Amino acid sequence: MNTLESLIGNLSKLPGIGRKSATRMAYHLLNADRGYTEALADQIRFLRDRIKSCSVCGNYTEEDPCALCQDPKRDHSLICVVEQPQDITPIVGTHEYTGVFHVLKGVLAPLDGIGPDDLTIDALLERVKQGGVQEIILATNPTVEGDTTALYLVKQLQKFGVTVSRLASGIPVGGDLEYADRLTLARSLQARREISLP
Amino acid sequence: MNTLESLIGNLSKLPGIGRKSATRMAYHLLNADRGYTEALADQIRFLRDRIKSCSVCGNYTEEDPCALCQDPKRDHSLICVVEQPQDITPIVGTHEYTGVFHVLKGVLAPLDGIGPDDLTIDALLERVKQGGVQEIILATNPTVEGDTTALYLVKQLQKFGVTVSRLASGIPVGGDLEYADRLTLARSLQARREISLP
Repeated sequence: MNTLESLIGNLSKLPGIGRKSATRMAYHLLNADRGYTEALADQIRFLRDRIKSCSVCGNYTEEDPCALCQDPKRDHSLICVVEQPQDITPIVGTHEYTGVFHVLKGVLAPLDGIGPDDLTIDALLERVKQGGVQEIILATNPTVEGDTTALYLVKQLQKFGVTVSRLASGIPVGGDLEYADRLTLARSLQARREISLP
Repeated sequence: MNTLESLIGNLSKLPGIGRKSATRMAYHLLNADRGYTEALADQIRFLRDRIKSCSVCGNYTEEDPCALCQDPKRDHSLICVVEQPQDITPIVGTHEYTGVFHVLKGVLAPLDGIGPDDLTIDALLERVKQGGVQEIILATNPTVEGDTTALYLVKQLQKFGVTVSRLASGIPVGGDLEYADRLTLARSLQARREISLP
């Protein structure tokens, strides 16, 4: 198989890319500026070596702790809990949130065998135990798993006397936080509501 | 700017890829198998070095002449004239066409300053002059420029006594041959009609 065919095959493995899009991309690359293709190739090759998990919040970062955790202007008494690192960028992009983050690296999914120990829940509780945290915003996706995980976290966080809130609905139920538009996300941050168990 | 941001920026320059798709692709690459990312990076980096134009037909190829021009099973008395190298693969894919190709590398577009000398028309006439060619199928896109170019080629080819035909309509007018489905392309090959000037 030749280089062009192999490239098309590999590009079509990317999410959302079918064979025709991959072909179009490959022919585009064939005529693209050499500096561009070399930069792109390097970025793809070295991405995984350069990018690590932040030891504090679990965000993807090139320096540890990450820029958000190191930022003295951010409110470190406010932690927003998200499922995945890619959920952080859209929340920061709203300019509505000034706190820090905690990445769960998944959601509770008993049917898939994913329990509390597979997530970074212990690390979150540890951050709260160290003190100084006033509010935890649960920003898991508004799906069955995301809601279940949020409820589980409320139970775990209750004893520490911190305020626990959940992103307001506004994000279409069943949708994915990663793809929400900026305005919807900003509104759901403003309208967040405290959760307490009966 | 960090590697992830740069990668997202570069991926979003690809045709048909917006910022959200690029972000999704970048996060996918971050978690992808290392063998895969290295192969993809190499293919992007070395694509332009490995792939040349065929000196006979102008197709993209790693060996010169290209596999199609070298194939003794193909009918070398039948030449299909296309605008771009990427038009060849869908035509070969129909299994309806057994001849060889000629890539014009564009279409006549006087308003954009593209005249006959900017295309590979001389090379096509040279191939015909060398003899052995019985039919030329003009497979430029059914657009104003593609039709104009086809008409120009008919005039040029007339004196050589070869049959000149045009892909039958069936491809939606104003559309792009590169994205036609296999069946439509196969039908338009079967129903091709000889063109002669009044």
